[in-house]
Amino acid sequence: MSHEKYMERAFVLANKGKGRTSPNPMVGAVLVKDGHIVGEGFTSPAGGPHAEVVAIMDAGEDCKGSTCYVSLEPCSHYGRTAPCAEALIDAGIKEVYSAIEDPSSKVNGKGHRMLENAGISVKVGLGKEKAFEINKQWFKYINTGRPWITAKFAVSLDGKLATSTGESQWITNEYSRNRVHQVRNMSDAILVGSGTVLADNPRLTTRISDANKFIRNPLRIVVDSAGSVPLDAHIFDPKLPGDSVLATTEKTDQSHYDVLLSQGISVWVLPQDDKGRVDLGSLLDRVGQEEIITMLVEGGSILLGSLVSENLIDHIKAFVAPIIIGGKSSPGPIGDPGISSLADVLRLDRIESENINGDILIEGDVIHDL
Amino acid sequence: MSHEKYMERAFVLANKGKGRTSPNPMVGAVLVKDGHIVGEGFTSPAGGPHAEVVAIMDAGEDCKGSTCYVSLEPCSHYGRTAPCAEALIDAGIKEVYSAIEDPSSKVNGKGHRMLENAGISVKVGLGKEKAFEINKQWFKYINTGRPWITAKFAVSLDGKLATSTGESQWITNEYSRNRVHQVRNMSDAILVGSGTVLADNPRLTTRISDANKFIRNPLRIVVDSAGSVPLDAHIFDPKLPGDSVLATTEKTDQSHYDVLLSQGISVWVLPQDDKGRVDLGSLLDRVGQEEIITMLVEGGSILLGSLVSENLIDHIKAFVAPIIIGGKSSPGPIGDPGISSLADVLRLDRIESENINGDILIEGDVIHDL
Repeated sequence: MSHEKYMERAFVLANKGKGRTSPNPMVGAVLVKDGHIVGEGFTSPAGGPHAEVVAIMDAGEDCKGSTCYVSLEPCSHYGRTAPCAEALIDAGIKEVYSAIEDPSSKVNGKGHRMLENAGISVKVGLGKEKAFEINKQWFKYINTGRPWITAKFAVSLDGKLATSTGESQWITNEYSRNRVHQVRNMSDAILVGSGTVLADNPRLTTRISDANKFIRNPLRIVVDSAGSVPLDAHIFDPKLPGDSVLATTEKTDQSHYDVLLSQGISVWVLPQDDKGRVDLGSLLDRVGQEEIITMLVEGGSILLGSLVSENLIDHIKAFVAPIIIGGKSSPGPIGDPGISSLADVLRLDRIESENINGDILIEGDVIHDL
Repeated sequence: MSHEKYMERAFVLANKGKGRTSPNPMVGAVLVKDGHIVGEGFTSPAGGPHAEVVAIMDAGEDCKGSTCYVSLEPCSHYGRTAPCAEALIDAGIKEVYSAIEDPSSKVNGKGHRMLENAGISVKVGLGKEKAFEINKQWFKYINTGRPWITAKFAVSLDGKLATSTGESQWITNEYSRNRVHQVRNMSDAILVGSGTVLADNPRLTTRISDANKFIRNPLRIVVDSAGSVPLDAHIFDPKLPGDSVLATTEKTDQSHYDVLLSQGISVWVLPQDDKGRVDLGSLLDRVGQEEIITMLVEGGSILLGSLVSENLIDHIKAFVAPIIIGGKSSPGPIGDPGISSLADVLRLDRIESENINGDILIEGDVIHDL
């Protein structure tokens, strides 16, 4: 096998940690000796061993003199685990192919230098583009301190969330709705606006029937600038699995949310934007401080409209149901202000579509000018 | 090969006439003798020979004693050509497998009876469902006297035709726009509302770069209830290839359209609905009288809104561009009145989606309760 094939294998391994490694990146590592793979590993959930260490343990005595293919620069610092660069040195690795530098301030080339200083040959950049793609959420987080934002909505084929009278339940089919739970299961947090909570009173929990699956309930965040969501909404039920947060402003009196605090539910009092609403940039900064790498926005149209106009969305998942609703005033998924010039609309690439039993899921990444 | 395989072959042949046989159905025929296909044919453009006759000519002397597999009941009447049933009898065919009865008043079982009366064994119904599907447009026309209506629109991923300021050019990419010309090339007529002509001044001609292709320009019909479209609009240019029609009501004074008549452009004066607009049912009846089997509606949202609310659409082609526009008042593809109850929305089946260089084409048939 060629260097490229071994690195490709490291990428496949990295992806096995998908949705499970936050706040760490997904990493895969392969150890090769005399033309054979002698050890493999990928980063397990935070706190567990990193890919390189798993591969070293997998290879045992065969480590000595082997070549390591790793999808991201080995770490050089003591965090939840000891530095991987040190582990590779101690294991007697001869050569390292590293796909891409880790730009986080704690690493940022130090891992590669540590290896080189120990006399290990280090080659950086093989499969760099793919390595970036695999961890694009994490790279965004490292570079900006903010989570990767996925906006999800469900609409009719003519782009309506609901009929003109507001009926909106079950636009998409059960397979699409199950898919949403799988997406939640891979997300660190979910964001909704107060309107969605007032209209639908959702729990936003992850409901997956497969009992063998590890189930995660993302942090639920309600943006409620003026405290209009009643505190007996399902989302604030302390018995729900996982945690909830009320994100609000000083316009909301503390007496309103004292009961939440007493139940262990967090309240974030955030700066206001020029309309007196929670400033979304500040919100994303605050979310990032929680080491949240991926956040799913499940509506409603007012919140999505603001996120679109401030160009804060990274990925769109649109579930399109094969129905036609029509009507000039039937609501769409993305509210005001909207984008007035076609030159300024959000453009997506890496477009994929999938037929989910008749519903069509269309998704893609928002192109951000750099 | 089995009976099913021969009939399948007849269906493949039938489809070769796609978009080319109006006002006739697409038909394929296979002649089999001693376990070998000895002749094949499909119906060519109107006026040319029917499938059975082509197959008989293809088989020559081998016709005698052969079995015929045909995707639709052979015709029994003199129209543009002599009856196919007679041709099969004269050719000495021994046995006929016919997929489905032709319900048109001129045939309606008479073809099968003519064959039986001549001593030919006739078996009807093999592959009936597929035979219906192939000619569903034509079956609708025969059963109702109205054309099969395909509604086409192009929207952003959030269901917008245009920005809040009305900018709408080039929402979809050039590959999608080329596809629209291919769809026109397969349609008998195109329908647009006056608003679309006023806004975009389209020519609605078929522009296909492949010089080897037979190019057809569908009949262009403008619904303009009160004569608001200026007569120097491109669509009324007598130099355009193909024909145009102004569909209007008595509200429009004849002096307005005299110049059209003098240029050989047809004007249909149709009954008004309760809003004083062209009554769409009467319009479709009138279109059917022209032996138009398939009609493509290219907007705008007012016309599509009326067609949706009267449940007159049979098929939807939605070109979805990977952009987000947003805005509560940015227009969608289907205008008022819209459907107020989710129980009454138009539902589609046979959903297909295709990635056209990043645009997603979603299409399906509207389910009509029978």
